[in-house]
Amino acid sequence: MSSEVKVISGKTVAEHNSRESCWIIVHDHVYDVTEFLDDHPGGSKIILKYAGKDATAEYDPIHPPDAIKTNLPPEKHLGRVEAGTVAKVEIKVTDQEKERQLRVNARPPLSEVLNLHDFEAIARSVMTEKAWAYYSSAADDEITLRENHAAYHRIWFRPRILRDVTQLDWSTTILGQKSSMPIYITATALGKLGHPDGELNLTKAAANHGVIQMIPTLASCSFDELVDAAQPGQSQFLQLYVNKDRNIIKRIVQHAEKRGIKGLFITVDAPQLGRREKDMRMKFEEADPDQVSKNDKSKEVDRSQGAARAISSFIDPSLCWDDLPWFKSITKMPLILKGVQCWEDALEAYDQGLAGVVLSNHGGRQLDFAPSGVEVLVEVVEKLGAKRGLTFPNEKFQLFVDGGVRRATDVLKAIALGATAVGIGRPFLYAYSSYGVDGANHALEILRDEFEMAMRLLGARNIKEVVRDMVDASSIHQHIVAVPEDKLYHGNYESMQSVRLREIKASL
Amino acid sequence: MSSEVKVISGKTVAEHNSRESCWIIVHDHVYDVTEFLDDHPGGSKIILKYAGKDATAEYDPIHPPDAIKTNLPPEKHLGRVEAGTVAKVEIKVTDQEKERQLRVNARPPLSEVLNLHDFEAIARSVMTEKAWAYYSSAADDEITLRENHAAYHRIWFRPRILRDVTQLDWSTTILGQKSSMPIYITATALGKLGHPDGELNLTKAAANHGVIQMIPTLASCSFDELVDAAQPGQSQFLQLYVNKDRNIIKRIVQHAEKRGIKGLFITVDAPQLGRREKDMRMKFEEADPDQVSKNDKSKEVDRSQGAARAISSFIDPSLCWDDLPWFKSITKMPLILKGVQCWEDALEAYDQGLAGVVLSNHGGRQLDFAPSGVEVLVEVVEKLGAKRGLTFPNEKFQLFVDGGVRRATDVLKAIALGATAVGIGRPFLYAYSSYGVDGANHALEILRDEFEMAMRLLGARNIKEVVRDMVDASSIHQHIVAVPEDKLYHGNYESMQSVRLREIKASL
Amino acid sequence: MSSEVKVISGKTVAEHNSRESCWIIVHDHVYDVTEFLDDHPGGSKIILKYAGKDATAEYDPIHPPDAIKTNLPPEKHLGRVEAGTVAKVEIKVTDQEKERQLRVNARPPLSEVLNLHDFEAIARSVMTEKAWAYYSSAADDEITLRENHAAYHRIWFRPRILRDVTQLDWSTTILGQKSSMPIYITATALGKLGHPDGELNLTKAAANHGVIQMIPTLASCSFDELVDAAQPGQSQFLQLYVNKDRNIIKRIVQHAEKRGIKGLFITVDAPQLGRREKDMRMKFEEADPDQVSKNDKSKEVDRSQGAARAISSFIDPSLCWDDLPWFKSITKMPLILKGVQCWEDALEAYDQGLAGVVLSNHGGRQLDFAPSGVEVLVEVVEKLGAKRGLTFPNEKFQLFVDGGVRRATDVLKAIALGATAVGIGRPFLYAYSSYGVDGANHALEILRDEFEMAMRLLGARNIKEVVRDMVDASSIHQHIVAVPEDKLYHGNYESMQSVRLREIKASL
Amino acid sequence: MSSEVKVISGKTVAEHNSRESCWIIVHDHVYDVTEFLDDHPGGSKIILKYAGKDATAEYDPIHPPDAIKTNLPPEKHLGRVEAGTVAKVEIKVTDQEKERQLRVNARPPLSEVLNLHDFEAIARSVMTEKAWAYYSSAADDEITLRENHAAYHRIWFRPRILRDVTQLDWSTTILGQKSSMPIYITATALGKLGHPDGELNLTKAAANHGVIQMIPTLASCSFDELVDAAQPGQSQFLQLYVNKDRNIIKRIVQHAEKRGIKGLFITVDAPQLGRREKDMRMKFEEADPDQVSKNDKSKEVDRSQGAARAISSFIDPSLCWDDLPWFKSITKMPLILKGVQCWEDALEAYDQGLAGVVLSNHGGRQLDFAPSGVEVLVEVVEKLGAKRGLTFPNEKFQLFVDGGVRRATDVLKAIALGATAVGIGRPFLYAYSSYGVDGANHALEILRDEFEMAMRLLGARNIKEVVRDMVDASSIHQHIVAVPEDKLYHGNYESMQSVRLREIKASL
Repeated sequence: MSSEVKVISGKTVAEHNSRESCWIIVHDHVYDVTEFLDDHPGGSKIILKYAGKDATAEYDPIHPPDAIKTNLPPEKHLGRVEAGTVAKVEIKVTDQEKERQLRVNARPPLSEVLNLHDFEAIARSVMTEKAWAYYSSAADDEITLRENHAAYHRIWFRPRILRDVTQLDWSTTILGQKSSMPIYITATALGKLGHPDGELNLTKAAANHGVIQMIPTLASCSFDELVDAAQPGQSQFLQLYVNKDRNIIKRIVQHAEKRGIKGLFITVDAPQLGRREKDMRMKFEEADPDQVSKNDKSKEVDRSQGAARAISSFIDPSLCWDDLPWFKSITKMPLILKGVQCWEDALEAYDQGLAGVVLSNHGGRQLDFAPSGVEVLVEVVEKLGAKRGLTFPNEKFQLFVDGGVRRATDVLKAIALGATAVGIGRPFLYAYSSYGVDGANHALEILRDEFEMAMRLLGARNIKEVVRDMVDASSIHQHIVAVPEDKLYHGNYESMQSVRLREIKASL
Repeated sequence: MSSEVKVISGKTVAEHNSRESCWIIVHDHVYDVTEFLDDHPGGSKIILKYAGKDATAEYDPIHPPDAIKTNLPPEKHLGRVEAGTVAKVEIKVTDQEKERQLRVNARPPLSEVLNLHDFEAIARSVMTEKAWAYYSSAADDEITLRENHAAYHRIWFRPRILRDVTQLDWSTTILGQKSSMPIYITATALGKLGHPDGELNLTKAAANHGVIQMIPTLASCSFDELVDAAQPGQSQFLQLYVNKDRNIIKRIVQHAEKRGIKGLFITVDAPQLGRREKDMRMKFEEADPDQVSKNDKSKEVDRSQGAARAISSFIDPSLCWDDLPWFKSITKMPLILKGVQCWEDALEAYDQGLAGVVLSNHGGRQLDFAPSGVEVLVEVVEKLGAKRGLTFPNEKFQLFVDGGVRRATDVLKAIALGATAVGIGRPFLYAYSSYGVDGANHALEILRDEFEMAMRLLGARNIKEVVRDMVDASSIHQHIVAVPEDKLYHGNYESMQSVRLREIKASL
Repeated sequence: MSSEVKVISGKTVAEHNSRESCWIIVHDHVYDVTEFLDDHPGGSKIILKYAGKDATAEYDPIHPPDAIKTNLPPEKHLGRVEAGTVAKVEIKVTDQEKERQLRVNARPPLSEVLNLHDFEAIARSVMTEKAWAYYSSAADDEITLRENHAAYHRIWFRPRILRDVTQLDWSTTILGQKSSMPIYITATALGKLGHPDGELNLTKAAANHGVIQMIPTLASCSFDELVDAAQPGQSQFLQLYVNKDRNIIKRIVQHAEKRGIKGLFITVDAPQLGRREKDMRMKFEEADPDQVSKNDKSKEVDRSQGAARAISSFIDPSLCWDDLPWFKSITKMPLILKGVQCWEDALEAYDQGLAGVVLSNHGGRQLDFAPSGVEVLVEVVEKLGAKRGLTFPNEKFQLFVDGGVRRATDVLKAIALGATAVGIGRPFLYAYSSYGVDGANHALEILRDEFEMAMRLLGARNIKEVVRDMVDASSIHQHIVAVPEDKLYHGNYESMQSVRLREIKASL
Repeated sequence: MSSEVKVISGKTVAEHNSRESCWIIVHDHVYDVTEFLDDHPGGSKIILKYAGKDATAEYDPIHPPDAIKTNLPPEKHLGRVEAGTVAKVEIKVTDQEKERQLRVNARPPLSEVLNLHDFEAIARSVMTEKAWAYYSSAADDEITLRENHAAYHRIWFRPRILRDVTQLDWSTTILGQKSSMPIYITATALGKLGHPDGELNLTKAAANHGVIQMIPTLASCSFDELVDAAQPGQSQFLQLYVNKDRNIIKRIVQHAEKRGIKGLFITVDAPQLGRREKDMRMKFEEADPDQVSKNDKSKEVDRSQGAARAISSFIDPSLCWDDLPWFKSITKMPLILKGVQCWEDALEAYDQGLAGVVLSNHGGRQLDFAPSGVEVLVEVVEKLGAKRGLTFPNEKFQLFVDGGVRRATDVLKAIALGATAVGIGRPFLYAYSSYGVDGANHALEILRDEFEMAMRLLGARNIKEVVRDMVDASSIHQHIVAVPEDKLYHGNYESMQSVRLREIKASL
């Protein structure tokens, strides 16, 4: 932290190219990461690839600019590299990457993207495999991931007719902030994996459409970048992973408040980051095939362990209800718990005077077989009504849900059931990963059009008119797995066939 | 509107061949459609293709003959084209169209068409892609479209035995009109897309079989054509989209009453026409590939917007309960609301003294996740029984359902649950699109045979004997989505196999 | 009926080879079938193929020997054909038939047939397409056909342990007759379609295993043939279609009683024979391709009508409850109604003093969406318990079910729920169609082994110990159709994958 | 049993090479197995292949070393074979086996095995077909096999948040013995089929991880081998099939107690061993193709009969409740019934003073449609609570479940519902069959990691905190089979399609 910065020649750096002494260059600064190797969430292998070299091109797409500075103790910040002394690291463009570029060029025009599903279809084709694996994966067998979407399909509408639906207004107020729709862009990590501008794409699109962005702790852009990019009057929330070091947390929270953040969403469903096996398998495929082809346990890097240990440095598993008064003591921002999964904890949050809860299972990325947010919503509304006489939506104690949302109709179901607003994450990731800020804008336009259509057809002129009677959620708690198929019986059954055309002999 | 009609040479017309000045010829008349381009429900592109030319061949299959006259202000009616001065527009027959014609010629004889499903299978092969996309598509993810059919499969029979079922009578009375079966042909738009005679096919088949046709507002044939084609004593209903201009509506309604229409079905589930994405995708595929292949947003026509704007000119989203007394004041025809989707609105219709309601979600084409008509029927019968002491079927307040019907057994389930009759739409469209009026007749013959079979086996000699106890609808409200599949477990499971034949070595 | 039989030369017969005058030879007798052509259940086409010729080879596989004599009035029995004057009808063996013969020869040995499903798999390969279509088809969309099997899968066991199951006895008494198992071979028509010995195969196997065969009215063998073939002490039942001519019925019933038939099962679920579309489609494929390839309605034979008319001559749709006292007056055999489908009718049968009912939907061949017998069983037992204080199984009023049974476990579920015995039909047809009487025997051996296994594991030493508490049927009334799949969502979902082997480069 | 052992020349042995006189050599000893041929559980064919020869190589992978001695009466132990006089039996390595070896060599490194499913995927590729068929098969249609897993998917979590989950402890006490996890390795037979070390692999892995192994009666290793291999302090249980000869049983039980076995699990769900058709079919495929290709019943060996008879010699179907006092009289080990399938029998076990029950259906290998253990658990906890005031988990009367477990989350669901611990069988078999003891160790490591993750995310710091409120099991008793699919309707439905990339013309 001294002002005199040492200058180091590229040649010197190049000598520290081993596990025993590993220096790397990022944005012209030299860092000694030898001791950090085993703590790197992404594994040591990827760092060692750049031992003694300039890692900037690999570093940038994933990390906020200041991440390396923040994570390494000052004594590991060795100095500046001497200009012109570093060998250019040539990034070999693989055939796989060339094919991906062809697909990028073959993207259809945005006007053909008709719904949020379409962005996912494009993203799957045009993102790098690594990014796709990271974003799309979830915990264990990904049952909860898919249940998040499936749960909405167990809720059906009860539309009303013959109301004057000429004028519609689907704007609302979230924690006192205006929002043009009853949604917000929820926090998702590592946004630059999908697009070089990362979460900035969302800041801009949010501004264009008057919706609120929740800034993630693990953003690829730095917090201040994202706040700086906001338009005057644009509201932003902050998602917070709570670190063991509460001084850091205090600094982050108070800095956020000073910068005008309108709500603090404390993540409570991730005392440990979930294992996502699709993502893990991806990493094996990326690894050196020579190494892994030998069934030699001693030489294997236990990738999961590295990640788990590293993460424990920034997520505190001891976080508990007793910590909440302290949070209230350090900030006036509304406090919301993100990741509540049963009515008992929602009730506790209410009794502790918080501003609300997000009923969420972290997009299915934490505990498999955790219920969907929208299912939990039904029990929370019922129980907090019975026990505290609350009705929802409720200004004083706001309920949010996230996970699995693909249509404005999904959102309106949650609103009818008592939510104030719904968080949408992956669809926006896929939208900007495919088309940058235009994609994020188009995603919001699609939602806007869908809100107009759905509210008009539902007979609701504004969000207040989207009421409980407009949905039938009586099947929401049904978790059915069919009796296993009788394979022999079905193998024997010869399907009915429709009438067929005569054979066409002559062809063109 | 003056009697002196200007004569214009084809050469003059040909000069107005651009977006800046766009004239077209339809049935030897010249129209200036420049200002109408952006309001055309089908988009401007298709009109511009005929700018300065004779558009009749393209116009006829879709529009009622008088549509262009009605929609353009008189000053845009420029006059008659001079005979012999117009260059023939050669319609290039594409390879795709030639292949379709081969399929048309390969249609099986009607006697092989055993059920209504078969018509759909044929239609899908022999209709133009555009027509198929328009007819078969529905809202959003087409969940409600398919639920309409699926809901009938959750209703099971409780057949009765040992009744003398020698003589059967499945005729009934609908709004006081005799019908040979408890069904009617419900309104569907743009009938000429499927067959050059459009809805006339249905008028004729309805006459042959003594069933009632509901004439659609958006028919490809004109209202008077369809009424003129009716046989003496043949009953017809009218489906009405309510326009902002109530004078037009008044004229239409009173004209209909004068022409002998026996029931006015006011559509209440379409304050805005639904987005049907399959249909939209079709349009993109039809569009100029050069244009859309460029990812250039500024040049893209926003097709959905054009349609939405245009449609707002003939559907009034402000239509509401307060308008109903006015309807009663202008006609003595029975008034029925088409598109009721919950018991509350059915009750209101009853309390306002209407003649009935159609429990319908517009064939799944409006709000996705709207419940099926037959599910709503169950709640309507129960609630109107509890609140007003009504029993159903009820002469004074008749309940109809439509959507998803493919078998007479579907119809009989609805009748047993309290419906007076059931509307069938797409199957008739598919029938006449495949085989013209013979197809529509055969569809009705199939239904007739199915009614005979099903009523005899059900033990009901006439429609009155099709009673509530004959069905078990206890699973009707179950909206189940199975727990997402455990892909790893099922991937590992090795299916049971039946015994196999010995290998056959020698072959013929 | 005169004793002097006319002798006619083959040449004379050959002159009557048209629709206008159609004579055929069957077993050396000449018949004039001109007027019968349109009444033939199998259509006129097949007869006209043999006009003026010897039809014996075509006739035999389907008809009981005396069918033609019984169905034609005496004046149409023209006499004997002169020996040696008839041209041999060469039956062209088609390639399709040759391939079938190869498959027949490739049948696996019976010891590899492990369960009843296996017979179906073999039969599908080795039966003629016509026979397979006739046996396997069912009504409409074949929903009830499959539900019959599926319903058993909604019933689960509650097995008991630590009972001395050394000695097991799964024999029982059906209508007072001993049966080695709680099943009987139920009636199915046209048995010679599958095997030249037809139902005789079942008579023999039933004798071998001490089970009861129900002789069908529409057997391919004559009633007396089947009774004559029975072993001393072997019990047989008779299934009866009730004809309009009650004198014929009286004769049949009293003859049956005289021949020792132990129970009369009156079919009450078939006032009209069901349409089976798979079977109908088969017929079209068999028909002359030249004729049907022309879309010329006037020339088409309406096959379904012919069948319907013909059948009405031997099934009386007026049969009703009032006829039952007459049946009781003409026979002392136990009377059972076959085809009861709701508790109300079972109660009526009880109140009328009948010996029992078969809860059946005719193997799914009559009314689609009729419930499975085993589902009806649950309601019958409950309601007749509540209303008449009956418990089941009940000696005085016996309940049977049939349809969909493939395993002894299926049977035991029905027994536990209150049935006296279960009828099994198609599996025996498939067994003897594939392997003759050995097949039928093996089918019964399989069931015997399955009964031993299942009862021992269930903890029931005899049929009386198979009690209600041994099954959980709480899901029996659930008729679920899942919410239609979200195709876009599932299309985007990338399935989890198991770990994979390394690529194997060298191969053998 | 005399000390003087006869020496027999290989030549002499070779003369006894027929069904009439069949001698074989195992581990240099000669046995006369002529009379045993038909009692051999694996059929006579496999023995006859080695008639007059050295069968050791075939014998070893399946049998405990002393099995042949124990099963044959002393007079059939003929003596030692003269060294050097026996022709080496060349085991022909089939192409199939060579391919399998290639797959064995292509196994991925263990670090890539992420879950228990992965072991199954590997095992299916690298095990012999015979071993795979034996392990993976189950009763009848394998409905219960798959239901065992499916049932867990009907149970969902209700996770708790904001608890200090820094320190976690998922160890527990089972029948008074410490276990590092709430699981035990349950008994499965014939372990050498999968790996030459058989169950020893599990003994070692259990020692490494502090879990308890249940030794099977039908182990491929001998009981003493497995006990000798245990580490000091390592706990083992014994699974017992009860033989007719109670002296043998007494000897086994008292020997086990003397050797320090901590719990005796008496199998009560297998008075007869289940038929497993996949396994049976395997045997046919292995059999001599010449023999089975002839449809000659007389020559067929009825394999199932042989097995059934042989098994009856070591399983006593008369075992019943009255035998339990005798067991209590001969041992002080805790007695547990393995295979209880309803609350009534659990209650009886409690009332008889047993130490607990395993709610199990024998891995789906006995009675198909027996309910899953975890479903039975729900009713047992409820009923024993209501009738005896018990709460669970309960020290005095412990409940265990097994079957279908693949994840630690499955285990925690059972714990929350009241189980003390969960038995896991096949996954460990697959693990060591694929990778020997390393595989078994890795399987336990995976579970350990999953317990850490799942408990932290569930908010439970130790097993006691895994409580009933943490799961929603309200759908557990739902046994749904969907209404059969409407094939015609679905055949006609054209699926929604996502937007597509433009065609990519140039490729690499």
